[in-house]
Amino acid sequence: MRRILNIKTTKQLNKKVRVCGWVNSRRDHGGIVFLDLRDRSGIVQVVCPAKLAKDIKDEYVLAVEGKVKKRPANMINPKLETGKIEIGASKIEILAKAASLPFDLRSQELKVSLPTLLDYRPITLRHPKIKAIFRVQEKIIESFRKNMKDLGFFEFQAPTIVPVATEGGAEVFRIDYFNYDAYLAQSPQLYKQILVGVLERVFTVTKAYRAEPSVTTRHICEYISLDAEMGFIDSWEDLMDICQILIYNIFSDLEKNCKKELKIFGQTISALGTQIPRLKLREAQEIIFERTGRDNRQEPDLTPEDEKDICQWAKEKKNTELVFCGAFYNTARFWIQAFIC
Amino acid sequence: MRRILNIKTTKQLNKKVRVCGWVNSRRDHGGIVFLDLRDRSGIVQVVCPAKLAKDIKDEYVLAVEGKVKKRPANMINPKLETGKIEIGASKIEILAKAASLPFDLRSQELKVSLPTLLDYRPITLRHPKIKAIFRVQEKIIESFRKNMKDLGFFEFQAPTIVPVATEGGAEVFRIDYFNYDAYLAQSPQLYKQILVGVLERVFTVTKAYRAEPSVTTRHICEYISLDAEMGFIDSWEDLMDICQILIYNIFSDLEKNCKKELKIFGQTISALGTQIPRLKLREAQEIIFERTGRDNRQEPDLTPEDEKDICQWAKEKKNTELVFCGAFYNTARFWIQAFIC
Repeated sequence: MRRILNIKTTKQLNKKVRVCGWVNSRRDHGGIVFLDLRDRSGIVQVVCPAKLAKDIKDEYVLAVEGKVKKRPANMINPKLETGKIEIGASKIEILAKAASLPFDLRSQELKVSLPTLLDYRPITLRHPKIKAIFRVQEKIIESFRKNMKDLGFFEFQAPTIVPVATEGGAEVFRIDYFNYDAYLAQSPQLYKQILVGVLERVFTVTKAYRAEPSVTTRHICEYISLDAEMGFIDSWEDLMDICQILIYNIFSDLEKNCKKELKIFGQTISALGTQIPRLKLREAQEIIFERTGRDNRQEPDLTPEDEKDICQWAKEKKNTELVFCGAFYNTARFWIQAFIC
Repeated sequence: MRRILNIKTTKQLNKKVRVCGWVNSRRDHGGIVFLDLRDRSGIVQVVCPAKLAKDIKDEYVLAVEGKVKKRPANMINPKLETGKIEIGASKIEILAKAASLPFDLRSQELKVSLPTLLDYRPITLRHPKIKAIFRVQEKIIESFRKNMKDLGFFEFQAPTIVPVATEGGAEVFRIDYFNYDAYLAQSPQLYKQILVGVLERVFTVTKAYRAEPSVTTRHICEYISLDAEMGFIDSWEDLMDICQILIYNIFSDLEKNCKKELKIFGQTISALGTQIPRLKLREAQEIIFERTGRDNRQEPDLTPEDEKDICQWAKEKKNTELVFCGAFYNTARFWIQAFIC
């Protein structure tokens, strides 16, 4: 019998089906056992006599055959998409057993230490709140890619083993490359720039590596870089126009496609206003000085505290939590940062 | 004045425009100069008096302002999308100069040695035939990704710095990771398998690394892996079903989206037949033995020569150049190879 997804069982009322998945939870009521079976489409409730569910524990992997039945009105679960039905199991096959879980995967928050979170990755990733992070990551990348292509950017694949360090100053990972020194790329910068001369507008979703020993939220050894470069820019306004389209569209895609995930984290997409404010560095520093009295007006960059303050200003004055903050180096080269707080 | 793309000039007849791009070629006819200006959308012809084009050579980067004019009937170039018009330049600004090219970028074949091809990558990538390779690469990845998502697969990002070698036997690149040994991942295998337990169907487009010193068409140190894994498979037919959908769709997407590129290489998408033949290893070896007399019927794998012969058989007998060839290891695990010759 062909397996169907849990979500499809609602269309098979009074028919026999075969479903497969993980035991999300087991509840015993007298001689009857209720199993919440989880697959990639969601959860469905399986009901069976205790003898059929003998030894079955949380996270066991099962193939279940049975008839789809309407639940009694008082048993309907409005939180489940399959909450109006259940499967009366006639056959349960154990595909894989699972040891007892070392933590409670059913609690709303997965309360484990970082080492436990990582040591038990195959299990901790199953927690809805952890899984949600990766779903949002997938959707951000998907939206970035779609929007870049819509804006005429070409997607390329950058090499990550490079013969020289690509950015001055930053620490690099060294590789022994057949008795030559090679390095993990800190950025696809060189390849982007080569390709601007070929295709004008290019982007890549690639790995970048920094061998920086610091442990802060701004340091990471291996990260995914959503990286773009474009030619024939008349002014920095052109760049900010592209960034704004991109950020607005990614945010609105997330709002549309990650409802469930945002809800799990109690998050909403922040207000975007009609336009992201565009400030020069000195303007931003002046605003911060006026609001807080903190005088960083001679500094070459914003401090993390400055960034928070300028975003707070934008929220209050411009109904958005985003700010462009740039400083001209000269007429041809410039530098832009978009802060998302 | 805002720059427009070359391809858009055809809609601006008798209007003034600004275009930017690279000099694809220069032709002097008496006091008149013809410049083929190339941007990401294509080529447009610029005409101007010689004094306006003084010093301008191939691959110079220009901003050109001028009026879009109909070409005389005998000057129409049917090979260009903008072949019915030209721009009468009134102003030419040189944005960047270029040294004389060390090879002829205009010839149909870029006849350079491998070291020259690589040393001059920023230039050689501009050759239509080289550029076409990367366009096809982009479209294959795009189609793979789209089709995997349509089939319910989740896209994840695999780490590439790993604490242990991921596949027995293959050579690895070692990294010094803050005084610990780490390695470049030879495959996202472990992460795929972890995620099958979480999301059932997953894929990734990621880098994989093999420190194999061989120089053959089957060895490469850093490559892009289009890698997928799925759970709850009833038989190897399930896997081949997915592969077939994927391959058929990628091929038909390429046929649709890479017409120009395939034409440059004189290639067509090979016939796919109605079904990719599904052979067990022994069946394939038997066919090869019957056709060629070469007896590899006891070998654990097909040789490169075997692969060519079995694809030739498929072409003759099944109107497709693809073959599935698999060998059961046991009932639960199997191995599949799809050969594209």
